Amino acid sequence: MATFTCSAAHLGVLLGSAANATAAADYICNGFDAVSNKLVDATYAIDNTYLLFSAYLVFSMQLGFAMLCAGSVRAKNTMNIMLTNVLDAATGGLFYYLFGFAFAYGSPSNGFIGKHFFGLVKFPCPSFDYGFFLYQWAFAIAAAGITSGSIAERTQFVSYLIYSSFLTGLVYPIVSHWFWSADGWASPVRSENLLFGSGVIDFAGSGVVHMVGGIAGLWGALIEGPRVGRFDSNGKPVALRGHSGTLVVLGTFLLWFGWYGFNPGSFLNILKVYGTSGSGSYYGQWSAIGRTAVTTTLAGSSAALTTLFGKRALTGHWNVIDVCNGLLGGFAAITGGCSVVDPWAAIICGFVAAWVLVGCNKLAEIFKYDDPLEAAQLHGGCGAWGIVFTALFAKEAYVNEIYPGRPGRPYGLLMGGGGRLLAAHIVQILVVLGW
Amino acid sequence: MATFTCSAAHLGVLLGSAANATAAADYICNGFDAVSNKLVDATYAIDNTYLLFSAYLVFSMQLGFAMLCAGSVRAKNTMNIMLTNVLDAATGGLFYYLFGFAFAYGSPSNGFIGKHFFGLVKFPCPSFDYGFFLYQWAFAIAAAGITSGSIAERTQFVSYLIYSSFLTGLVYPIVSHWFWSADGWASPVRSENLLFGSGVIDFAGSGVVHMVGGIAGLWGALIEGPRVGRFDSNGKPVALRGHSGTLVVLGTFLLWFGWYGFNPGSFLNILKVYGTSGSGSYYGQWSAIGRTAVTTTLAGSSAALTTLFGKRALTGHWNVIDVCNGLLGGFAAITGGCSVVDPWAAIICGFVAAWVLVGCNKLAEIFKYDDPLEAAQLHGGCGAWGIVFTALFAKEAYVNEIYPGRPGRPYGLLMGGGGRLLAAHIVQILVVLGW
Amino acid sequence: MATFTCSAAHLGVLLGSAANATAAADYICNGFDAVSNKLVDATYAIDNTYLLFSAYLVFSMQLGFAMLCAGSVRAKNTMNIMLTNVLDAATGGLFYYLFGFAFAYGSPSNGFIGKHFFGLVKFPCPSFDYGFFLYQWAFAIAAAGITSGSIAERTQFVSYLIYSSFLTGLVYPIVSHWFWSADGWASPVRSENLLFGSGVIDFAGSGVVHMVGGIAGLWGALIEGPRVGRFDSNGKPVALRGHSGTLVVLGTFLLWFGWYGFNPGSFLNILKVYGTSGSGSYYGQWSAIGRTAVTTTLAGSSAALTTLFGKRALTGHWNVIDVCNGLLGGFAAITGGCSVVDPWAAIICGFVAAWVLVGCNKLAEIFKYDDPLEAAQLHGGCGAWGIVFTALFAKEAYVNEIYPGRPGRPYGLLMGGGGRLLAAHIVQILVVLGW
Repeated sequence: MATFTCSAAHLGVLLGSAANATAAADYICNGFDAVSNKLVDATYAIDNTYLLFSAYLVFSMQLGFAMLCAGSVRAKNTMNIMLTNVLDAATGGLFYYLFGFAFAYGSPSNGFIGKHFFGLVKFPCPSFDYGFFLYQWAFAIAAAGITSGSIAERTQFVSYLIYSSFLTGLVYPIVSHWFWSADGWASPVRSENLLFGSGVIDFAGSGVVHMVGGIAGLWGALIEGPRVGRFDSNGKPVALRGHSGTLVVLGTFLLWFGWYGFNPGSFLNILKVYGTSGSGSYYGQWSAIGRTAVTTTLAGSSAALTTLFGKRALTGHWNVIDVCNGLLGGFAAITGGCSVVDPWAAIICGFVAAWVLVGCNKLAEIFKYDDPLEAAQLHGGCGAWGIVFTALFAKEAYVNEIYPGRPGRPYGLLMGGGGRLLAAHIVQILVVLGW
Repeated sequence: MATFTCSAAHLGVLLGSAANATAAADYICNGFDAVSNKLVDATYAIDNTYLLFSAYLVFSMQLGFAMLCAGSVRAKNTMNIMLTNVLDAATGGLFYYLFGFAFAYGSPSNGFIGKHFFGLVKFPCPSFDYGFFLYQWAFAIAAAGITSGSIAERTQFVSYLIYSSFLTGLVYPIVSHWFWSADGWASPVRSENLLFGSGVIDFAGSGVVHMVGGIAGLWGALIEGPRVGRFDSNGKPVALRGHSGTLVVLGTFLLWFGWYGFNPGSFLNILKVYGTSGSGSYYGQWSAIGRTAVTTTLAGSSAALTTLFGKRALTGHWNVIDVCNGLLGGFAAITGGCSVVDPWAAIICGFVAAWVLVGCNKLAEIFKYDDPLEAAQLHGGCGAWGIVFTALFAKEAYVNEIYPGRPGRPYGLLMGGGGRLLAAHIVQILVVLGW
Repeated sequence: MATFTCSAAHLGVLLGSAANATAAADYICNGFDAVSNKLVDATYAIDNTYLLFSAYLVFSMQLGFAMLCAGSVRAKNTMNIMLTNVLDAATGGLFYYLFGFAFAYGSPSNGFIGKHFFGLVKFPCPSFDYGFFLYQWAFAIAAAGITSGSIAERTQFVSYLIYSSFLTGLVYPIVSHWFWSADGWASPVRSENLLFGSGVIDFAGSGVVHMVGGIAGLWGALIEGPRVGRFDSNGKPVALRGHSGTLVVLGTFLLWFGWYGFNPGSFLNILKVYGTSGSGSYYGQWSAIGRTAVTTTLAGSSAALTTLFGKRALTGHWNVIDVCNGLLGGFAAITGGCSVVDPWAAIICGFVAAWVLVGCNKLAEIFKYDDPLEAAQLHGGCGAWGIVFTALFAKEAYVNEIYPGRPGRPYGLLMGGGGRLLAAHIVQILVVLGW
């Protein structure tokens, strides 16, 4: 059985013929209450340990973005982009503390924007602790990190700084409010009026983080125009290769490492039982977290291998930077549905993500769009595919475990769950694009 | 006392004169059962947190291998070896999911190879959860990472890919089945017919991972032959130094960092009491895990310092790359016995490992064997020494705590535990060599 | 309620009229005792998981120091300084095991130096486990890592080795004994005769680690004298810029990552309730740990931005290496008071730290002091400011939660807590300087 609250009144009647039945019942229930409180303490300690170390892993993605940038730009521009990466994290720290968190999670609020906890006043409270703030801050600066890649090598430093502050302090928080706050208009956990009776299931942010970061980068790069020399006088593309494959691989592996904080960490806590299995079972949120780490791994692996052979077929070369980008595209795609799909579906997710990236890069060449890190294509394009993927492959049992209390909610179209989740997710893509 | 299961029948008799004695006993036992279930949940959450973050640390060793390779090869070959490292992880992900895990842990099975859980069907189950799969996958790709170093700079990319898939999907899983699965013929935890009444104690894999990876690399490198220019026309060795000491140090430190997931993580869970101390004591598996982190640290440290002064005496130079290799040799050696020896023994382990590495490198020069990262010498040679070391220095109390339920089992020869463990370990070395 | 210990004697009386009242009471209390023991086990497992992973993070700071050094020195000196960094960790491992830990924490002892646990004999014990040793070792080598930066590029290798062993084996342990061991003369937790009725609150070591490391480096660098060419024939400074901004940023981010082990990890355990909130509340040590991670983040962020704009105003350039140093100065400053101040105070801490660093660098130029990594200025200067800062901004509630059992103890001067904490902290600065 799941819960037990000791009732001294009830137990006293049962022990009724004893001389001091009431006192005995009080004493025993007192014991159970103390144990119950200690279990509450232990739960906080376990969940905060899990969440804090996940936040540190997500933070380590900043190292990944920085090294990826350093390796992908030409050597002469390294110092500029490095400064950009450090400042993303630092300005993100201040602005997310002052405004961003409040806009994202300042509940109670309306469906569009939050309005409490500016500067973390009245913090912590029963619903939010500092670990949660830190975790969300790490997400906000990851979105900024994605953007920095798109506009590398040609952006004025001060304009970038304003842009980045705006993104982490306002744009990203508002989008995360819509999909992740309990008050958000498209949230899958709001108490009533769910979008298409479902809300959007974007678990760790294929849309909220990757598409937002990618699209923000896309606009930035469009405004900036391509780098000098990226297209020759006849408009033919010229490869401007980065200066270090080693740094690209270092960055890619660091992002892979950090993604284990990003996806499995998005559960926020690990000590939670699932209704179907109940307390005392080997199956609970800890299993779902492990499964999420596995789906993440498989999606990236399958995208990397698909890119390897696909690019080889298309270009005749084996190329490590393409493989790294394919791998990251697989991660960006699985991020949205990582927790609600089976491992085999993750392999499909990565396979398609690789081709989406190839296609987006083709389009970028045609439209003379220049993105030194392919960030808009990778995070924007594969992120969008991830949103669709989730709506196709989300499994009924997993959806109900992770978003409980609403039996019969929609799940993946190809899993027999109808089209309502897909409808909600297409709305998400359009809204993020528009915003 | 260690365990308590509330028996309402028993308690009802004790409360017999009360009016509703049976109901009261039911009620109280109900409370204890609920608490007991919640403790089970908490245990899963704690152990999975421990295991998952350990798995992430082991994964970070891929960064280490990649940087070590990048720094150790000549600049022109960087891109090739970097691609190799990324693909080790990616192909490992797919093949270990499809076959490898099943071959290794698909129990019930025979002593030679497992046969369940292909593609993780019927997963999770009471004995295995996704976190365990992820942890074992990280080990499998570490074995592949070791091999990639040996055959760096001269391997055709496609043949390497086949080789690596074969290693992570078949060769390594079978060896790990032998020594680590409860069904394995040489496992120290099988229920009967232990090899020499003992089985092989290769806790985190001096043999299963390092010797296998090292020997696989040795064969690979022998087949390939030395790099052009490694030995001059008179057969004298020519140093082909890598291009970056900084990357070697970065890789070494990353491996050191990851080894804290590799060795202490091999306990797989942290919330376990030991028979001698019992529940409620300050001493339990958490202490043994800390001790393992300490023995690992000391073995590496002592090997590094021994190499520093030893090489200085032999060559007259201080050399950072030699020191890094010595350090890693110490880690490879302590890996097998890290959990069952005392810290002072770990210092001896590292001291000898440094000389084993020096000796293996001497042999390699004599036999004109060329290994750009000294991987076969380091992981193969020092790994083999680690297997012998464990059989000499395993402490009785620790062996019985970690492999319980079989009093009087053999332990280290020099600790008074007889020669049967050493016999089993020599069998291991021969079998791994042969295989 | 906080604690409950089941008394069978008491319960037996309450159940007195039952036939087997004593046996029933024994049985029920037996159940509670078993649960209580299991909760003790779980607490050890949770706290050790927290402490061990924090120790691994602190260890990862060695990667950070190494990369920072590699990027900051001129290319020709890379190999030398890299060797230094590896050996700091390795010699630290041996010497801290043999002597250092005993000098620091070998209690019972006098206020000046500890005297038990040489070579970890009689270890573990109820007060210390291996995880604690590992955590303190990682701190000791961090102090050595700071020093190595100051004397980079001009130190004989052997003299450095002696110097480093001396620091990790003797100097640092003694200082940490004074301020952190329960027996230390300036400890805030000694049972009586607190310095100024307060003791020094140097939570994670602005003084104990950073000032000690910085001052040790200062003396080392003074003895060595400036690098050839650092000041021209007229005594004017010449910038000797390091060879890689990318490595500096990598190192800085790795240190940032590791600092989450350094500051929040210094709580040593996470499952602890606070008197004011009691068991079962959402607020406990886990919240204070999260808050500490937030103050750390904000201090670094604010220092980085202050440096960015301050240096721009002073020199007209945007400079990534200056920003990285500013960031690290903010971290060094917040380290002492990270757990006892509010997030808004951390922003002030970082703002001032940036100017302290600018000032120290000005002084260094005037006095022709040459420190390739600005380590003495950064860790010494900002560390000293951090000690003062804590004495000004420590909040009453937080001080009493973290250093409980002594109501009315002094806290921050500007928070209304009087000047006694400041007096104690000025003594600390003077003593560390003198020592």
